[in-house]
Amino acid sequence: MTQTAVAPLALSNEAQELLFRSARTANAFTDEPVSDEQIQAIYDLVKWAPTSMNLQALRVVLVRSDEARAKLVNHMSDGNKPKTVAAPLVAILAADVNFHDELPRTFPHFPGARDLFAGDDTSREATAKFNAALQVGYFILGVRAAGLAAGPMTGFDADGLNADFFPDGEHRALAVVNIGKPGDGAWLDRLPRLSYDEVVSAV
Amino acid sequence: MTQTAVAPLALSNEAQELLFRSARTANAFTDEPVSDEQIQAIYDLVKWAPTSMNLQALRVVLVRSDEARAKLVNHMSDGNKPKTVAAPLVAILAADVNFHDELPRTFPHFPGARDLFAGDDTSREATAKFNAALQVGYFILGVRAAGLAAGPMTGFDADGLNADFFPDGEHRALAVVNIGKPGDGAWLDRLPRLSYDEVVSAV
Repeated sequence: MTQTAVAPLALSNEAQELLFRSARTANAFTDEPVSDEQIQAIYDLVKWAPTSMNLQALRVVLVRSDEARAKLVNHMSDGNKPKTVAAPLVAILAADVNFHDELPRTFPHFPGARDLFAGDDTSREATAKFNAALQVGYFILGVRAAGLAAGPMTGFDADGLNADFFPDGEHRALAVVNIGKPGDGAWLDRLPRLSYDEVVSAV
Repeated sequence: MTQTAVAPLALSNEAQELLFRSARTANAFTDEPVSDEQIQAIYDLVKWAPTSMNLQALRVVLVRSDEARAKLVNHMSDGNKPKTVAAPLVAILAADVNFHDELPRTFPHFPGARDLFAGDDTSREATAKFNAALQVGYFILGVRAAGLAAGPMTGFDADGLNADFFPDGEHRALAVVNIGKPGDGAWLDRLPRLSYDEVVSAV
């Protein structure tokens, strides 16, 4: 009855801040390591979020060795190299274009699911990329849910990275994500968002 | 000291359940309407989640009129038609391939950002689709954050839908999402997820 009433959300304000509002893309991290157990807790949370026909195309490569880190840095754009060198953990998030081989197990009530995708490599790759991208979004929020900061990057030579890290030719890197506790100088200024009226319309 | 220790998450258990674990894709809804204020609250939460260069390619069309609903149903795959007819609100989530026109405002510290995308329509469309897909993931979780259930669908004739709803030729529908309170028979059996070891590896 006063101003525009904004509908309250069911999600607690604390969770809204942790995942969306206070959370920010980090550009610098402390030295505190990120354990496999933390990544498992993130995965075991975000794996429940939906994909088309439960197809779960996302694959995650944790870059743990110095040798792999050096190879990865080599494929990053110049502006992303120092961050990729310094982050406590870097993960490559990729789409598995052969996700359909798992469908008999992950979508068992529709026995024809695998064959639906088997015949058209172009369409299957687009489906893999879209659904893995959904899961990249879930994963970034999952990193925040673990009390860590994410620094997702898309500035890299994808063909070079794919050739080095996925020589099977069956994966497409979508994002590289720095993960850790935010350090000194982690935050740039908050950038403006498009308004509701610019993004949402009704017909 | 007992079993495999799973790292605790910073996100409360209640929020984990609301967004990920108890949340499910709904296949049936009550008649309770979904207001523009609820959608605005969802947007004003999820708009903060990150995109590449803050490019925010997602556009949302709320299908409010009977005429638009009938047009949309016509493009849905047969299995999705009844749900699309019955849901209290249906939204089309699309990528704006001309997102780059907003970059001087949304990424102001890099004046060359718009021109970086202007010259290559194919690359710009791929960038729009990837980033809007991230935002589709955020939006689905935002619907859940509002205490509503989402029923995302990718089974539709995208070319027909795009021609009908985006005659400017500058948008690509990525998902159609039913939104509302879950009704009788909303839930199918929970489908299995891939294990951590199938999805995450280290190098």
